[in-house]
Amino acid sequence: MGINEPLNRKLRMALVGGGQGSFIGRVHSIAACLDNRAVLTAGALSSNPERAKSSAPDYGIEDSRAYTSYQELIESELALPEDQRIDFVSIATPNHVHFEVAQAAVKAGFNVVCDKPMTYDLAQAEQLLETVQNSDVVFALSHNYTGYPLVRQARAMVLAGELGEINAIRSRYIQGWLRDSIESDDQKQAAWRTDPTKSGAAGAFGDIGTHAYNLGRFMTGLLPEQISCHLKTYVPGRRLDDYGTAVIRYENGALGTVTASQISHGRHCGLEIEIDGTKGSLTWHQENPNEMSFRRNGKAHQILVPPPEPEYQDRMGAGVCRLPAGHPEAFFEAFANIYIGAFDDMVKRAAGQPFDGRDSIYTNCYDGVEGMYFIQQCVASSGQDAAWVPLRHEAARR
Amino acid sequence: MGINEPLNRKLRMALVGGGQGSFIGRVHSIAACLDNRAVLTAGALSSNPERAKSSAPDYGIEDSRAYTSYQELIESELALPEDQRIDFVSIATPNHVHFEVAQAAVKAGFNVVCDKPMTYDLAQAEQLLETVQNSDVVFALSHNYTGYPLVRQARAMVLAGELGEINAIRSRYIQGWLRDSIESDDQKQAAWRTDPTKSGAAGAFGDIGTHAYNLGRFMTGLLPEQISCHLKTYVPGRRLDDYGTAVIRYENGALGTVTASQISHGRHCGLEIEIDGTKGSLTWHQENPNEMSFRRNGKAHQILVPPPEPEYQDRMGAGVCRLPAGHPEAFFEAFANIYIGAFDDMVKRAAGQPFDGRDSIYTNCYDGVEGMYFIQQCVASSGQDAAWVPLRHEAARR
Amino acid sequence: MGINEPLNRKLRMALVGGGQGSFIGRVHSIAACLDNRAVLTAGALSSNPERAKSSAPDYGIEDSRAYTSYQELIESELALPEDQRIDFVSIATPNHVHFEVAQAAVKAGFNVVCDKPMTYDLAQAEQLLETVQNSDVVFALSHNYTGYPLVRQARAMVLAGELGEINAIRSRYIQGWLRDSIESDDQKQAAWRTDPTKSGAAGAFGDIGTHAYNLGRFMTGLLPEQISCHLKTYVPGRRLDDYGTAVIRYENGALGTVTASQISHGRHCGLEIEIDGTKGSLTWHQENPNEMSFRRNGKAHQILVPPPEPEYQDRMGAGVCRLPAGHPEAFFEAFANIYIGAFDDMVKRAAGQPFDGRDSIYTNCYDGVEGMYFIQQCVASSGQDAAWVPLRHEAARR
Amino acid sequence: MGINEPLNRKLRMALVGGGQGSFIGRVHSIAACLDNRAVLTAGALSSNPERAKSSAPDYGIEDSRAYTSYQELIESELALPEDQRIDFVSIATPNHVHFEVAQAAVKAGFNVVCDKPMTYDLAQAEQLLETVQNSDVVFALSHNYTGYPLVRQARAMVLAGELGEINAIRSRYIQGWLRDSIESDDQKQAAWRTDPTKSGAAGAFGDIGTHAYNLGRFMTGLLPEQISCHLKTYVPGRRLDDYGTAVIRYENGALGTVTASQISHGRHCGLEIEIDGTKGSLTWHQENPNEMSFRRNGKAHQILVPPPEPEYQDRMGAGVCRLPAGHPEAFFEAFANIYIGAFDDMVKRAAGQPFDGRDSIYTNCYDGVEGMYFIQQCVASSGQDAAWVPLRHEAARR
Repeated sequence: MGINEPLNRKLRMALVGGGQGSFIGRVHSIAACLDNRAVLTAGALSSNPERAKSSAPDYGIEDSRAYTSYQELIESELALPEDQRIDFVSIATPNHVHFEVAQAAVKAGFNVVCDKPMTYDLAQAEQLLETVQNSDVVFALSHNYTGYPLVRQARAMVLAGELGEINAIRSRYIQGWLRDSIESDDQKQAAWRTDPTKSGAAGAFGDIGTHAYNLGRFMTGLLPEQISCHLKTYVPGRRLDDYGTAVIRYENGALGTVTASQISHGRHCGLEIEIDGTKGSLTWHQENPNEMSFRRNGKAHQILVPPPEPEYQDRMGAGVCRLPAGHPEAFFEAFANIYIGAFDDMVKRAAGQPFDGRDSIYTNCYDGVEGMYFIQQCVASSGQDAAWVPLRHEAARR
Repeated sequence: MGINEPLNRKLRMALVGGGQGSFIGRVHSIAACLDNRAVLTAGALSSNPERAKSSAPDYGIEDSRAYTSYQELIESELALPEDQRIDFVSIATPNHVHFEVAQAAVKAGFNVVCDKPMTYDLAQAEQLLETVQNSDVVFALSHNYTGYPLVRQARAMVLAGELGEINAIRSRYIQGWLRDSIESDDQKQAAWRTDPTKSGAAGAFGDIGTHAYNLGRFMTGLLPEQISCHLKTYVPGRRLDDYGTAVIRYENGALGTVTASQISHGRHCGLEIEIDGTKGSLTWHQENPNEMSFRRNGKAHQILVPPPEPEYQDRMGAGVCRLPAGHPEAFFEAFANIYIGAFDDMVKRAAGQPFDGRDSIYTNCYDGVEGMYFIQQCVASSGQDAAWVPLRHEAARR
Repeated sequence: MGINEPLNRKLRMALVGGGQGSFIGRVHSIAACLDNRAVLTAGALSSNPERAKSSAPDYGIEDSRAYTSYQELIESELALPEDQRIDFVSIATPNHVHFEVAQAAVKAGFNVVCDKPMTYDLAQAEQLLETVQNSDVVFALSHNYTGYPLVRQARAMVLAGELGEINAIRSRYIQGWLRDSIESDDQKQAAWRTDPTKSGAAGAFGDIGTHAYNLGRFMTGLLPEQISCHLKTYVPGRRLDDYGTAVIRYENGALGTVTASQISHGRHCGLEIEIDGTKGSLTWHQENPNEMSFRRNGKAHQILVPPPEPEYQDRMGAGVCRLPAGHPEAFFEAFANIYIGAFDDMVKRAAGQPFDGRDSIYTNCYDGVEGMYFIQQCVASSGQDAAWVPLRHEAARR
Repeated sequence: MGINEPLNRKLRMALVGGGQGSFIGRVHSIAACLDNRAVLTAGALSSNPERAKSSAPDYGIEDSRAYTSYQELIESELALPEDQRIDFVSIATPNHVHFEVAQAAVKAGFNVVCDKPMTYDLAQAEQLLETVQNSDVVFALSHNYTGYPLVRQARAMVLAGELGEINAIRSRYIQGWLRDSIESDDQKQAAWRTDPTKSGAAGAFGDIGTHAYNLGRFMTGLLPEQISCHLKTYVPGRRLDDYGTAVIRYENGALGTVTASQISHGRHCGLEIEIDGTKGSLTWHQENPNEMSFRRNGKAHQILVPPPEPEYQDRMGAGVCRLPAGHPEAFFEAFANIYIGAFDDMVKRAAGQPFDGRDSIYTNCYDGVEGMYFIQQCVASSGQDAAWVPLRHEAARR
């Protein structure tokens, strides 16, 4: 079977952002190309034209397609013959630039894979969703943790009813790298993440709290109703939250808790989730992603691994596992699983076949609106002494 | 050195509660006698006189000192010559009986080791505290998890400033045994715990949420200011909460979260705590009690074990470890550590020496008041849509 | 039900060894008394008469029954009326003294619980076995790790055929406390263990290698045929092995490996075992004793815990678990499980009932002979460049 | 900085083997291209010409460079202009074909990355080594586990003396997938691995025992002297070993143990290693590759993670970590680290710079000879009742 059949060619990728000093741009590039289904062809790697040019050789992008702005990229690529033109744009800029790049790319008819959070604020997110809805492009949002095989399996198990009715979701994302005011030393990653003009209304809660929230939504499909949130800034002089905790009431009566920290010494990417249902419970930890606990009263505790043993194989396609059990796959492979889901739809689109951009296996524009709404409401609640505020966004995915 | 020097004899124990079908009575008995410093001598093992008598041989209590009520026990023991009379009373009845037994024992001049929660409600707790304050007895409360060596070490490290200023405490106690309505089948442990006339105002939060809260208090010494709490009852027909989560504001600005569940499939005694300070962070899990993580940015992650390696030995006396490293000690030994702390003070009292019943290493009457206040305020907050309510009790330990 | 019914009294224990500075004497005392079925009544706590006397108050032994030699202990106790006389002798002396004490106690008709290794050499062990066989006493040997609930469950599962035919056993006991020549500093525990006149023919292999070997024998019941062993002494000047590895051929064709180390930095009691059968495999680690992995191809990996979930309850009586799941029991409780097995037989004997001292759940005199034979053959093989030597002892338990 | 500077272009890869049904061919392809330094350009994907052609589109190889034999590949590529010609050949065929392909490729002047074991037998390996020595090509052998960051760190720590003199190495590779005779069902992976005409003289010991042995050699650099080995075949009808254990004497007096199993139920890639030195000990497990235990008596147990904390950074370049701590990297990334080491040398060669193909960070032809010698001597020893045989190969890497 050819690559991206029936296209039988690799998809052509453009990267916006990702210039020298970037972390997430390189991740997008590796993840997108991991399965040999895409090739990085063009880029607008920095808002600084010089750096945009000088970073291109790092990625093997030819100088002729190393653009000095996303506008130039879109314009120039549109001018190319269709069989050379890029298929999709990956957006790896700081948060506040996502919106304009994404809008422009979608309007130009390019598929988009956007880093999260999707936009700077909710208004932008809603506007972008409308743009996407009015287009026929594929739009994926890199809530990359949803790409882990066991996260997919958890979702499949919940949807198949194996956990029964869901009562509780506890999720956390615990880091420590912002324990000190490293933004004062101009550490690039820290600087924009703690700057409200670039990062958005929230700090830790926007950066990683959204992942913890999204993970629970993805695994369970429960619909949120209200939230009460406390955001704290522990590092003196910092302008955004570096710690916070929220309680969520779901429509079905379930209770959720989300905690995010960037000030916990020695912690790295402590994204953990526990789900309690009437028939079973699951726990999963991102730093040891190839094990998931499944427990049921009266039965032995099970450790599930990917690819699943035969008794669980009907719960998850093996499609997102590249290796036999015991050969660990990790962060890049999970990230790549977001991409291959989107690629499947990009190929369908290119082949003139229908695809469902709303109920997709990869996180998408609807998740993006929901994420921005989550951030907005967390900040609003925190500003009112943790009062209950709504967390139900009709336009976002149901 | 003799036992309980300068007494040079074992302390004589009376057990109230603990008759057939009891779980915690046996635990008290084993824990108290583990180190050969006490001998179980008398008992009023059940409120049912027949069972009180018939349970005595299980414990090796002579029939003549197997009383049919706690009143009879106190009266009869007081009538014995001092060199035969019991030294202390351990209370292992259902919660609603704690108060009257404890009051009577203290008033009679007997030392007391009381199971937690200390009383049925706050008013009783405050009254009991006053009684204890007006006496010279030793009063210990079995928040047994504070007896684990690594919990003691955590406290010592925090007090020594090794974690810096504390910013966050996250603690949880996750169980699953009440996932189904086993109280309907008259399971004895479930029946009284889910009955508000016996258990008190709260279910899961009273039974185990208090442990999770107390553990954070014990390890850090932070003083609480306000709490917001959500209690849920997921099992149909149940009269008390079986799940809940609370957020605590401490006086120093730190944020605490406490979650308790009795409806999480396959979970047993998942008491976990994480503490974040400006200089370091700790995590500990009761089900694997002989490991504690200590992390500091820029330093390798350390796994601390008991007894501590030399570089940590000044932080904790070896007094609560009976075995060399690698020989695991567990639940009973931790429970016994509460007892040996109290024994030290009982011996001092008997020898006419002063002791500090307030700032003791074992949890005590002040913790008891605080625990009852915690329960009351959790229920109050939960009843007002999780509103903030005070959590500062002046009379309780500061 | 009374204690030790139909005796309805505690058993009276004498301790030989265990004076000041001893580790294992205290362990025997705590373990024996943990379940309130025995009381420490007499002792000959040291071969040094002065220390024998002065150590007695530590244990609460009355001066009148604090003897200055085991001979005096046996003689004096025999002279006491039967209702005061001790029931059993626990032997916690250095290895080279075990034999004479045990011989004398058995000949005097006292039950014995002997620390392992049973004797100084095989000849003594065989002689002791004969003595025991010619008596009617209960004789237990404290291969204490066989007392862990999950070790018992493993045995039950193997015997019930749930693992199928056993093909392989891999066991190890890894420590680090003898990494340096602490015997040169006269550390008491190190001094006798590295002294061939006190410890016996082997060092690490006698002290802990025997545990690793015995554990595999206990769990599987496989009968050994031949062994090839390499013993090493890494610490300069040491007179006995501090590291070694052996390969065992079992009669059924299975292959066993046993490794013991006392020179592995930072390791404490790393006793681990893995068992491979045609139908399933098990792994267990002493330092985390309340979890056992059970794996079968095509099925989810299971983590078994004590007390077992209902689906496993027919494989192990709950008799050796004192607490519900999640309340960890550990070293002392496992040790106590050896004692309560022996107590059951002591009670039977006292009541004139038959008991099977050979096929007992507690490790016994037959295991003791086997252990001494194992040590002897390991040393023999190692002395011949790891040649194969027999490991089949007809007199030992089959 | 450009890709593969000063070449400033991707390296062109040819894959031999890897046709439909192959596992390891896909792994080589993903690993080689992961860092965007190589592009898969040509292939001879199967010895079956039809399958060789039909598999090419899977990899995006153009039909014109999808050859039907490795001979055709080499001949045709040599005929291409240098700026189109492949730079290296990756060999992912069954073991018995490695030699002829590698010989031909090396003789034609192509760099080679060969899957392990390097050849079918030792004679071939020695001959290939000679060929490589007489050439100027880069030759890498995919002992891929040596590419894990923490394995590299272990090596660096040992070489820097942080563990002191090494006394013991214990390594194991435990799998379960050949528990049943799946070769009888013609499962492709099982069929050739259990066929002595394709796999070589050993089964499990050749396939995975070599990894366990090589890992110890790589981490410590200890030189072997003698080996005693027992190979077993537990599955009826199987023609090669599926279980085995070996003891190794190193020149410095250290003792090594290597165990390999393919019949342990539910085990996947249980490659574990423990190293004991006079100053410290290390343990690492491939299935949880981002943690390594470092222990020293008297110091807290440390859990090392990649990239290393500052206190360990001088021990390992960050060059093999693509992500910050907490973002797990795994099997593919480790495999890719073998490739990027080889790429560095390929670039040097292309630029006319010297490189050291013997003392390379990637495993190479010398490791290959050593591996084949290891297999030969294991089989020889096992055939002589586990007699000691030499394990010192002068031509292999010292």
